[in-house]
Amino acid sequence: MPNLRFTEKALSDWMRSDAADSEIVISSRVRIARNLQHYPFPMLASNEQSEEVLNKLSEVLQYDDVHAFGDFHTLDLMDIDDLDKRVLVEKHLISPSLVNESKNGAVILSEDESVSIMINEEDHLRIQCLYPGFQVKEAWEKASAIDDAFEAHVDYAFDDRRGYLTSCPTNVGTGVRASVMMHLPALVMTQQIGRILTAVSQVGLTVRGIYGEGSEAMGNLFQISNQITLGQTEQEVIDNLHGVVQQIIEHERTARERLISDSKLRITDRVMRSYGILSHAAIMDSKEAAQRLSDVRLGVDLGLLNGLSITVMNELNVMTQPGFLQKTFGEDMRTDERDIYRAQLIRDTINSASQSQ
Amino acid sequence: MPNLRFTEKALSDWMRSDAADSEIVISSRVRIARNLQHYPFPMLASNEQSEEVLNKLSEVLQYDDVHAFGDFHTLDLMDIDDLDKRVLVEKHLISPSLVNESKNGAVILSEDESVSIMINEEDHLRIQCLYPGFQVKEAWEKASAIDDAFEAHVDYAFDDRRGYLTSCPTNVGTGVRASVMMHLPALVMTQQIGRILTAVSQVGLTVRGIYGEGSEAMGNLFQISNQITLGQTEQEVIDNLHGVVQQIIEHERTARERLISDSKLRITDRVMRSYGILSHAAIMDSKEAAQRLSDVRLGVDLGLLNGLSITVMNELNVMTQPGFLQKTFGEDMRTDERDIYRAQLIRDTINSASQSQ
Repeated sequence: MPNLRFTEKALSDWMRSDAADSEIVISSRVRIARNLQHYPFPMLASNEQSEEVLNKLSEVLQYDDVHAFGDFHTLDLMDIDDLDKRVLVEKHLISPSLVNESKNGAVILSEDESVSIMINEEDHLRIQCLYPGFQVKEAWEKASAIDDAFEAHVDYAFDDRRGYLTSCPTNVGTGVRASVMMHLPALVMTQQIGRILTAVSQVGLTVRGIYGEGSEAMGNLFQISNQITLGQTEQEVIDNLHGVVQQIIEHERTARERLISDSKLRITDRVMRSYGILSHAAIMDSKEAAQRLSDVRLGVDLGLLNGLSITVMNELNVMTQPGFLQKTFGEDMRTDERDIYRAQLIRDTINSASQSQ
Repeated sequence: MPNLRFTEKALSDWMRSDAADSEIVISSRVRIARNLQHYPFPMLASNEQSEEVLNKLSEVLQYDDVHAFGDFHTLDLMDIDDLDKRVLVEKHLISPSLVNESKNGAVILSEDESVSIMINEEDHLRIQCLYPGFQVKEAWEKASAIDDAFEAHVDYAFDDRRGYLTSCPTNVGTGVRASVMMHLPALVMTQQIGRILTAVSQVGLTVRGIYGEGSEAMGNLFQISNQITLGQTEQEVIDNLHGVVQQIIEHERTARERLISDSKLRITDRVMRSYGILSHAAIMDSKEAAQRLSDVRLGVDLGLLNGLSITVMNELNVMTQPGFLQKTFGEDMRTDERDIYRAQLIRDTINSASQSQ
């Protein structure tokens, strides 16, 4: 049995440290997609071939230069039960596609969960580094260093004209996708968000909900990432994202300042009502939870609400997801039961966080 | 300057005692309309005449048989400032018409505010007795006894065929109006209220909001009273109201039991959300306050919510009225300011009541 400590706590250790701009940027992530030479992409690989890929890449962990990045734990997907897989997805440590489509899929996690290396997902190797707050450059540097360490021991599929080859053409070239998860309640409230997201998409970036492609933006959380991987250097990709996110941060900050100067009372009312409901409701669906947690997070950020930390808010974002709820309450739940357990978990968490102040 | 202790506390002392069926019937009231012989009705009386009426009726208070009903305090309306008048209306101790239309109007109040005798309102004399809970018979007996005491010292306008004469034809005959204020949230939630109010109006009773004729029913509070004063004896009037109210109590009770057995969770959620909002909101208009206070009152009645007493809920019903708010916060308020002070007062009252448990 693999070590499943990773599914016990809602919040990864790396999310617990303070970070720049963390009142607006929840987290930064860079992932690098790579494939081994002489092996078909996972989708086309035989069982034997993907097993070889898994063994080859797992062996790399033994080398000192890779080991330098921390203690790693390898989890074979087939050894993990469905609920734990779901929790790992909810913690953004693995992708739904690794769960649903992989053959001989595995994930290699660092002790603090800041490094997640997926094997036999869409590509043979996906190195992902996660940082709290706005640290996309730091995440890039670390992911890049781990990539270099792997490259010292295996041969990547590479084409001189096109760069790194990947299973999906949208990743060919750098194979790099950098993203930040932003909390933009003031831009939503002041109805500027549409204009800003349109502008973002015009400079080669893309916006998604927090659970990736096709997912709805809930709780005013937006994941912004680069669309382009071809024709730009990795540094240009990171710099472009960094610059645009910096501007969105400024817009959100200005919008928050204006909310406070123009409608402090209205915002306070909204924040406090959401706090009152979260700490008392008996039924709470995931959409409402996301929205009200967003209100309360904004209240904490603006100093309108004391007694709750951003760490608790980050924890609640994960804890209220279906898989984690089931993990906590140990039951196979219907949707309506989930709404009851979700309400209970939020009440208990908020009330005990407020009392411990 | 008259004694204005009557406008300081939101809740009259008579409302503080326990009473039968008080989880459904908030209070019972009987008022008797009488006029003196040889004087025109107040509307037609000269200043001199209405002054004489006032003096004549005030003198009656000196007699021992009247005095036996308690220590009375006479307040001349012209000595009371507008805000205090408003508070007296909000406490149901005087009518808007005494405030707005009377010449030489006055009110005589007993120490515990359970007896309120208006002079020179629509009629020369309006004796009103108030009881907590469902005590319409008790209220009738007391009002009737006070009426007898007055009648021993003054001559009432009386016609052998029509009975007691009153300014408005709807009061001619017995001059008696008995009413109860009912809290009927379960009948509203289960959408039975329309049918029941229709039935009520078909048996000679009438339903109003809690601030009398034409006022909207807010917070699921309904005032039910007799329409007929002619062709029935006082006893028939009281018995009819008593019987119908008894039936409505049973219907409400059954509806509450069904809510608890069929949808306890949904009701708990509603009650707790309203409690959470009342104890945290920064802005609260009177309509929302009434509705949420109704939810919380139901929660207290059903044992879903501890730490709040019905007395506190009764207090809040009066405290959140515009006049009383202004009395508490001592300012000439705009509507939007009122909503802020109302929210503050509710928060403070609920939180201190919950903590003192």
